[in-house]
Amino acid sequence: MDNSVMFKISYGLYVLTARDDEKANGCIINTLQQVTATPNKVTIAVNKTNLTHDMIMTTKKFNISILSEKATFDIFKHFGFQSGKNVDKFDGYPAGTGKNGVPYIKKGTNGFLSGDVISSVDLGTHTLFLANVTDGENLSNDNSVTYDYYQKHIKEAPQKKSKGWVCRICGYIYENENLPPDFICPICKHGAADFERL
Amino acid sequence: MDNSVMFKISYGLYVLTARDDEKANGCIINTLQQVTATPNKVTIAVNKTNLTHDMIMTTKKFNISILSEKATFDIFKHFGFQSGKNVDKFDGYPAGTGKNGVPYIKKGTNGFLSGDVISSVDLGTHTLFLANVTDGENLSNDNSVTYDYYQKHIKEAPQKKSKGWVCRICGYIYENENLPPDFICPICKHGAADFERL
Repeated sequence: MDNSVMFKISYGLYVLTARDDEKANGCIINTLQQVTATPNKVTIAVNKTNLTHDMIMTTKKFNISILSEKATFDIFKHFGFQSGKNVDKFDGYPAGTGKNGVPYIKKGTNGFLSGDVISSVDLGTHTLFLANVTDGENLSNDNSVTYDYYQKHIKEAPQKKSKGWVCRICGYIYENENLPPDFICPICKHGAADFERL
Repeated sequence: MDNSVMFKISYGLYVLTARDDEKANGCIINTLQQVTATPNKVTIAVNKTNLTHDMIMTTKKFNISILSEKATFDIFKHFGFQSGKNVDKFDGYPAGTGKNGVPYIKKGTNGFLSGDVISSVDLGTHTLFLANVTDGENLSNDNSVTYDYYQKHIKEAPQKKSKGWVCRICGYIYENENLPPDFICPICKHGAADFERL
């Protein structure tokens, strides 16, 4: 098969946030969908290497802030290019707090929703969480950002290199000719299938 | 909560197809996401009232044709506005056939992928299918259609009515002042949350 067809699936981009006894954290995801309307349920697939993943496994609660076309590259860098295992992403970061006590992002977003996890499915590299939507509010009338829009209008162009691979999710550059098939982006934790040649 | 925030989730639009011993069938879905890259797995959420849903429950096989911005309203009407329980949607309809024997749509699409169901989760109104991606090919370089693009550029404007509700998915009009909260669109099987006032 031609794996590049997978890039034709349309996605939005979201900041997934959680909070445990210690601190709050957030990461960028593209895998959110409403799976039933009555009652209102969503699924998200989250890479197990993300700290936010572990927090949700424990607390069963999360918020999703829906990124808009006004989101700047800084938001993607802040939540996607560094790990909550090393830094406190909400230390001084302006954010609202949902009724569930979990932060949501007010700038560069057009809404947020809150989820209570009902069940999870172990997918190997990721966990699929099924959740009831317990709250949600509109934050602006800006268009939701799509992955395609992010690629074309928000992501900063990588420095030109003679060889290597670039992560289509976060822009991380792997400066080698051959990308191992099991390579995981150290920044956003996406796999080799999300890389393209420079 | 403000339920309208759910409309800010970004989706593509797809023709989901299946084949059993009797015939082939297809319907329109918006719920496709790649959940792991290694191995390549996707999830789809399918309304139980769709004939295609029952075929997949039995055969465990499906194709997904990725609709592009070149898709005409006729494709949405053909696969979304009528039920395979009443008509044979592939009788005379031009289509390709995947290695799995299931048809895919060649016009108005930019690619297709084939799925083998691994497991399913009962979500009440819908079933969530988890599947291995076993095949996939690019069919054109046209942009994938998003739900937002469909709303703005493809969907035919409904006739003006003094009152009523219109399905944001397929355009079906419910000509009454009050839309029951458990209402299911008779055409595309989406729930009341997908309707908006005329």
